Amino acid sequence: MKILITSGGTSEAIDQVRSITNHASGHLGKIIAEACLAKGYEVTLVTTKNAVKPASHARLNLVEISNVASLQASLEPLVKNHQVLIHSMAVSDYTPVYMTGLEEVKQAEAIEDLLQKTNSENKISSKDDFQVLFLKKTPKVISQVKEWNPNIQLIGFKLLVGVPKEELFAVARDSIRRNQADYILANDLTEITADQHKAYLLDLKEEYPASTKQEIAQLILEKIAEKGE
Amino acid sequence: MKILITSGGTSEAIDQVRSITNHASGHLGKIIAEACLAKGYEVTLVTTKNAVKPASHARLNLVEISNVASLQASLEPLVKNHQVLIHSMAVSDYTPVYMTGLEEVKQAEAIEDLLQKTNSENKISSKDDFQVLFLKKTPKVISQVKEWNPNIQLIGFKLLVGVPKEELFAVARDSIRRNQADYILANDLTEITADQHKAYLLDLKEEYPASTKQEIAQLILEKIAEKGE
Repeated sequence: MKILITSGGTSEAIDQVRSITNHASGHLGKIIAEACLAKGYEVTLVTTKNAVKPASHARLNLVEISNVASLQASLEPLVKNHQVLIHSMAVSDYTPVYMTGLEEVKQAEAIEDLLQKTNSENKISSKDDFQVLFLKKTPKVISQVKEWNPNIQLIGFKLLVGVPKEELFAVARDSIRRNQADYILANDLTEITADQHKAYLLDLKEEYPASTKQEIAQLILEKIAEKGE
Repeated sequence: MKILITSGGTSEAIDQVRSITNHASGHLGKIIAEACLAKGYEVTLVTTKNAVKPASHARLNLVEISNVASLQASLEPLVKNHQVLIHSMAVSDYTPVYMTGLEEVKQAEAIEDLLQKTNSENKISSKDDFQVLFLKKTPKVISQVKEWNPNIQLIGFKLLVGVPKEELFAVARDSIRRNQADYILANDLTEITADQHKAYLLDLKEEYPASTKQEIAQLILEKIAEKGE
């Protein structure tokens, strides 16, 4: 079986020296990749520069991407020739459009006009006391996966921060429906520490709990094996 | 002699999962630190998580910081007990104040009112098609160095992107005057590649050129030795 895994976090450039980065160490993706390799699967790991990576392995193919556009371009052909996608990467929701000083925003006749502008400078000036950065939503890569390959098993991830369990589960199940995911791994940043990673693998009916990254990897592998092969 | 070096790039949090990061690999700071150790100096390297670091050494003290506030807090006592500061870190010019959907900005009676707001969510919602991030200038750490220790030798860095040499030099010399720096290392991102790093060590009168990170390190060490001890 060929398993596609994403890990790390994307970065969206503001200019040539600054970007907005989604924090993600890559540890969970690394452990899942290692567990898949131990099972004898072929693994393609799409990851980012600063993410931790597994040691090289004959059945491991590493692909490095930076932003949402490069993720999308890399993922489309890979989704078409893999049986499973475990999408643990923290993907940027927004990408910069235009950055300017507060004065230009105050002077604008209509704020929307600024969304048509782009920065021509390579490094945006830092003279103003306040700056304003306009951002637009990135394409939702996870929502395209089943269009690219209706037969792929899709395991998505949903990370929230400090919310009630009911809310976490509701948001995760909403993602299952919208993205035709087979499972969503739902977790809360406040329940992740150096030696604990509480999470729930959800389908529309059940919740399967895990307490460590190793348990998460095993749980995902069990579900893949049940459906897959 | 005790040399204080900064390297890497600071990150300013937007919320608990996103931040604005200044790109800086830390390679130049690492090479300068290694050259200082080879000369027999004691080195304190203040750096960031993803920066490359020198191998451990009996005369090397590593200090890790994340954002401008932690840089400032760490640097003040260190500046007071070192003879030289080589400040190669890429420091964030702006830090997030408030992020919201475009609608709230359009509805605001006065845009400035939004600068008084803060996000209460741990992870800012991603429902809007467009978001607006308000940022404020960070304190200029380099301008405080000579207040903390008037006797420290201060070597600052100025990185611009794709500007004429005259502009680069003018901006660098303006920094010498404003920050009472002894030298500024002026460089342009378009002249930095894997095996080349063009730069000019400037005082108010002279320009000393270098073409690689090693040459930059040697040039800085010569100037330190001339003034120092």
